[in-house]
Amino acid sequence: MGDRKLRILLSNDDGINAPGLAALHHEICKIADVTVVAPDSEKSAVGHAITLSDPLRVWNFQKDGRFFGYAVNGTPADCVKIACWALLKEKPDLIISGINLGSNSGINAIYSGTVSAATEGTILRVPSFAISLTTYVDPDFSYAAQFARRLALQVRERGLPEGTLLNVNVPPVPATKIAGVRVTRQGKSTYLEHFDKRTDPANRIYYWLAGKKVEVEEDLNVDDYAIKQDMVSITPLRFDLTDYEFLAELSSWDMLSPSS
Amino acid sequence: MGDRKLRILLSNDDGINAPGLAALHHEICKIADVTVVAPDSEKSAVGHAITLSDPLRVWNFQKDGRFFGYAVNGTPADCVKIACWALLKEKPDLIISGINLGSNSGINAIYSGTVSAATEGTILRVPSFAISLTTYVDPDFSYAAQFARRLALQVRERGLPEGTLLNVNVPPVPATKIAGVRVTRQGKSTYLEHFDKRTDPANRIYYWLAGKKVEVEEDLNVDDYAIKQDMVSITPLRFDLTDYEFLAELSSWDMLSPSS
Repeated sequence: MGDRKLRILLSNDDGINAPGLAALHHEICKIADVTVVAPDSEKSAVGHAITLSDPLRVWNFQKDGRFFGYAVNGTPADCVKIACWALLKEKPDLIISGINLGSNSGINAIYSGTVSAATEGTILRVPSFAISLTTYVDPDFSYAAQFARRLALQVRERGLPEGTLLNVNVPPVPATKIAGVRVTRQGKSTYLEHFDKRTDPANRIYYWLAGKKVEVEEDLNVDDYAIKQDMVSITPLRFDLTDYEFLAELSSWDMLSPSS
Repeated sequence: MGDRKLRILLSNDDGINAPGLAALHHEICKIADVTVVAPDSEKSAVGHAITLSDPLRVWNFQKDGRFFGYAVNGTPADCVKIACWALLKEKPDLIISGINLGSNSGINAIYSGTVSAATEGTILRVPSFAISLTTYVDPDFSYAAQFARRLALQVRERGLPEGTLLNVNVPPVPATKIAGVRVTRQGKSTYLEHFDKRTDPANRIYYWLAGKKVEVEEDLNVDDYAIKQDMVSITPLRFDLTDYEFLAELSSWDMLSPSS
């Protein structure tokens, strides 16, 4: 493609007005023609949802008096789909989702709308990564945004395997305190959850999910633990969910004869 | 556990009043104490969404004048979470999600609310499977329900590896026409998608996702193709999304020094 400028699509799950997306936009504009297509409101923990039963609407979204991007009344995966199939003239060279406010490590990768946008990009065969800043308190997105810019150039140069995306988590420390960059696997930490059972003003019962992460594996090869050690964690994820290891054993089960 | 009766939790994504869930309930009641916890309305293509920002409410749902189960204003994953953490006295022995109206094969496993309920069960360390009937037209759930009953007993006897669930797709043919049962991998068929661009009565533009599956791999080891050949497809899925193959190569990227 010679010297043609990179074309990068940005999305997120915190909504088009989120500061993390603005910080990402600021850095990525230095290296690429950028298009933003993002949910019109916060869509965290939507998993890999798409909207089939309702129409999608698209608005031009202004920021600081200028056109910033397209706001969609849908999920992060919807945004990537509608960008690639309807809003952009051709598929982008790269898709970046983020910068999320809060971590998307361990089992959270499954629930994450941020990861879902990158997954959808990968399904559409566009190299994609998700990036999150692992704090909710006083977020400073500047190092994460710079990291995204450098990673974008690396992904552009080296490519990603078909079906594989990257899930990046950046610890909330200044650049000088970053202890390194680590390629990790998805952690197996689970949540000790409970539902608060409450009563509303009309005396009806409702439930609210609460929980805290337990069992952090103490292994620098695990996303959660690397982040805890102030390292940037990069986990390669794939959307082929097949458990190839168990596949052969399963074939030996009795019931695999239809008359059993 | 000796002769204690099996305790099985049923959920789905088509909603608590769906005929596929009723058919499953009818068969599973023959072998287990059954609890139904399902969305109060249809939640297809919700992916692995959970509800964090809103309260969940639970209703007793009646069917044919009797208590049938708990209806929840949430997603399939919410239903499994609230069942295990709040509604049931102890975790069930097994979770079955379905019977879904329509296939959940290939890339659809990623979007599927049906699969998501089984994934959530697996995260909570309860052996789980999802089951779908691969048609939208004149569904007859009876064979699929019987198959679910037999599979439940096999899973109970043999267990599943930690982190692994089963995704079952049953072709819409009479029992006598079932060509066999096949352990498969998740197919890589993609969708040729487009967005219909339409104008509403108030002259505003909206978009509607449409698409058809392309590139079915002609391989009996692939879910989509096995189903096409009238075989029951069982795909073992895992929720660890890590791409272990690519992990080592990724570690060699230049940028894995924080100062690069």
